Amino acid sequence: MVGSWVNSAEVLGSDLPLELSGTGNRRAVLMRALREAIRAGRLPPGTRLPPYRSLAADLGLARNTVADAYAELVAEGWLAARQGSGTRVAERAVPRTPPQRPRTPRRAPRPLLDLVQGKPDPSVFPRTAWLASARRALTRAPHDAFGPGDPHGRPELREALTGYLARVRGVRASPGQIVLCSGAAHGLRLLADVLGGPWAVEEYGLPFHRGLLAAHGVGTRPLTVDEHGARVAELGRTDRAVLLTPAHQFPTGGPLRADRRAAVVDWARTTGSLVVEDDYDGEFRYDRQPVGAVQGLDPEHVVLLGSVSKSLSTTLRIGWLVLPERLVEPVLAAKGEREQWSSATEQLTLADFIESGAYDRQVRRMRQRHRRRRDQLVAALELRAPQVRVTGISAGLHAVLELPPGTEHSVVRAAAWQGLAVEGLGDYLHPAVPGPRDGGRAGRDGLVVGYATPAEHAYPEALEALCRALPPEPGPPSAPASPPAPHPAPA
Amino acid sequence: MVGSWVNSAEVLGSDLPLELSGTGNRRAVLMRALREAIRAGRLPPGTRLPPYRSLAADLGLARNTVADAYAELVAEGWLAARQGSGTRVAERAVPRTPPQRPRTPRRAPRPLLDLVQGKPDPSVFPRTAWLASARRALTRAPHDAFGPGDPHGRPELREALTGYLARVRGVRASPGQIVLCSGAAHGLRLLADVLGGPWAVEEYGLPFHRGLLAAHGVGTRPLTVDEHGARVAELGRTDRAVLLTPAHQFPTGGPLRADRRAAVVDWARTTGSLVVEDDYDGEFRYDRQPVGAVQGLDPEHVVLLGSVSKSLSTTLRIGWLVLPERLVEPVLAAKGEREQWSSATEQLTLADFIESGAYDRQVRRMRQRHRRRRDQLVAALELRAPQVRVTGISAGLHAVLELPPGTEHSVVRAAAWQGLAVEGLGDYLHPAVPGPRDGGRAGRDGLVVGYATPAEHAYPEALEALCRALPPEPGPPSAPASPPAPHPAPA
Repeated sequence: MVGSWVNSAEVLGSDLPLELSGTGNRRAVLMRALREAIRAGRLPPGTRLPPYRSLAADLGLARNTVADAYAELVAEGWLAARQGSGTRVAERAVPRTPPQRPRTPRRAPRPLLDLVQGKPDPSVFPRTAWLASARRALTRAPHDAFGPGDPHGRPELREALTGYLARVRGVRASPGQIVLCSGAAHGLRLLADVLGGPWAVEEYGLPFHRGLLAAHGVGTRPLTVDEHGARVAELGRTDRAVLLTPAHQFPTGGPLRADRRAAVVDWARTTGSLVVEDDYDGEFRYDRQPVGAVQGLDPEHVVLLGSVSKSLSTTLRIGWLVLPERLVEPVLAAKGEREQWSSATEQLTLADFIESGAYDRQVRRMRQRHRRRRDQLVAALELRAPQVRVTGISAGLHAVLELPPGTEHSVVRAAAWQGLAVEGLGDYLHPAVPGPRDGGRAGRDGLVVGYATPAEHAYPEALEALCRALPPEPGPPSAPASPPAPHPAPA
Repeated sequence: MVGSWVNSAEVLGSDLPLELSGTGNRRAVLMRALREAIRAGRLPPGTRLPPYRSLAADLGLARNTVADAYAELVAEGWLAARQGSGTRVAERAVPRTPPQRPRTPRRAPRPLLDLVQGKPDPSVFPRTAWLASARRALTRAPHDAFGPGDPHGRPELREALTGYLARVRGVRASPGQIVLCSGAAHGLRLLADVLGGPWAVEEYGLPFHRGLLAAHGVGTRPLTVDEHGARVAELGRTDRAVLLTPAHQFPTGGPLRADRRAAVVDWARTTGSLVVEDDYDGEFRYDRQPVGAVQGLDPEHVVLLGSVSKSLSTTLRIGWLVLPERLVEPVLAAKGEREQWSSATEQLTLADFIESGAYDRQVRRMRQRHRRRRDQLVAALELRAPQVRVTGISAGLHAVLELPPGTEHSVVRAAAWQGLAVEGLGDYLHPAVPGPRDGGRAGRDGLVVGYATPAEHAYPEALEALCRALPPEPGPPSAPASPPAPHPAPA
């Protein structure tokens, strides 16, 4: 009954303009042909169809086949059957084919070279090890793993994370305090809904995070950032929470200084507020052990926010919140009664990936790779642009290149002319802070260089383009801003 | 350097109360021991630590090891170092161990037997076939699959769905018109954000959907539902959209009648509104071919909303919107610049699962299984409760049992006493409609029986419990509501 069945309109005794072709059973093929003819206007509204017996004879089909096809098309609204007047094409305007607008591409074509931070080279994903974990995890998963999920997330992964985060990040929590989500952004949304605003944030940070908080009704106000991280002494009694990147201030670099770690926890305790610790790259520190998470200092006043986006792949959409006991139930309530976001099969696979040691191996591999990339960047700058100071290089997946005041914009433009995408530090500044362009604090022009982004073969060329885009002469630190002449575009 | 290294406080020459044990390098073990002693209050705030040289000698460690551990604990905020006064435990209240509240379970213990719709038996998930697809898909995926995702979703899956939905549901779309999301609920959220309100909805439907729309600022007003689906003639000019379940009205059953399909499309064209077609179980029809999607009638005025939650597993978190061309860009903008929700590896796996024919096989298997379940339900009722009318059984994963007016609540309670969870039709009624309990329309008491829910071995017992819970005598249709005496609980 099922199979390829080709016919054509010309051989029909009836004058129905049908194209009978394609696979499927005969009724399905006939229905498709009738729908097509109606859509294309070959059977206009009101057209009376031949009685099913005639069409069946014409087409060499069983009568039932044609009768069923008519009945189903009536049920679908394509045809109308009226007692005594046979079957007709339904009496209403048939949709004209919508004009085939050429789809405009959503983004400008990507430049050839890319040093924008936040998207590590995807070619390093450990496909074989991940598939091995998937096989083990799905084979031994209980049946309920394939049913509606608990918004808490799979216990296997919460167990695995509890051990891993304690060992590697000094996090103190029970598996019950971990709530899984679809990434750090989802975690932030949940916290915004549960805590309300306003929040203090670092004056330099991801615009995406500020926008996301604003979309959830949480206003943000900036804390000054210096070489020791955020000045937490600026925190006030009205801040419901403070969002910090203590392991490696994003994007300016450097861990939060010890006295500020203590002070921010004291502030949270005294005011009943909360520290939200975005541990976005805590595993990637190069010159000594990573600084432990602030969460370990006081698990009842710090939420740790993490994900596998930097360490493994942003594509997996798995993140976690490590919560004070009192916030677990409110966050689960905000998440909804059932898991709607994060895939349980991926959660189980990640649990096995961690428990089997594959995650440690991957982090180690990535750490070596990123460190090598960083060393290449530093070496290239020493050679080609010794006047440029590099900061924030002891950890993470990006570095900050300090630029003479007033030059940031033209350097980013010069890079684009070299076919290189790279972002300025100003792109990360809180809108409430007067930046260099508005005559604000000087000395903060800079480039944020995501050295983990390019594929291996593209990195040297990206570095070359970067060096060519940098100001050729060191500007005297106190000289008035004078943008260098932009480099000519390559011929 | 890394390995197991066990020591104990007693053998120390120093009087530091340290427990040195566990795996890791020696600095990590020492740091852990110091943190633990501070947490537990054995090293109170202000305690002066021995100089690192002495502790190193006491413990038989390299001086650098102890010096590094001190330095890192200072950086983390546990210790404080002041010029001339050595290293002390940081001067602030050390967090007391939070009281170990026993965690209360979030839900009442589940009854033994379950006929609540919406969560098909998870033991039927095709683990082997899914893993085979994962292996093929991840092996041949391009590198960019592991980088930041396009909110549109993987092109491989959009291609596969385009073919599948055209063949099985009569959907007309190009891959560009499909936007992937993390499930039907996510799709509804996106549409709510893009379209705004108010929407018309079927008076019977998922409370979860109405709540979700309300949370996104979209009010809903109910359309009367009869045996031919929603009365779309009640639609007005002010409705921005109408949410329908045309394949099988949820939960009362039955496809939307042909003239209403045509009428609702005409309404959308005339008023510039939109039909949102929740095709939640379009693949599961038993006694004839599935009724094609309304979307096929007019792709520019109908959005089709689908997912794999019923056909494969709710755990995968993959759904789709098939959109009119003009809505693609707004929905993508609402979704965000990068994919934050649905895992690309799962999307690729599903694409292979569809293209390889495994999805068709799974749907066929499920259809046979559900039909058998339905037949068992109908047979059991004919034998044990012939007075009960069953409706909505030609499709789907649940049936509706009509009950005498005024008996729904007591039957649900009686079922609970039999250890059976099952829902009343009233649970699905729009709050703006006066239900039987409020003296509203009579004759709509009923049970929604999810026959796909129990595991194979539990189904006969669930049916037995259901039959025992039903009213033993047919109530005369016009008699005043008189709840039957509840069944005694099993001894």
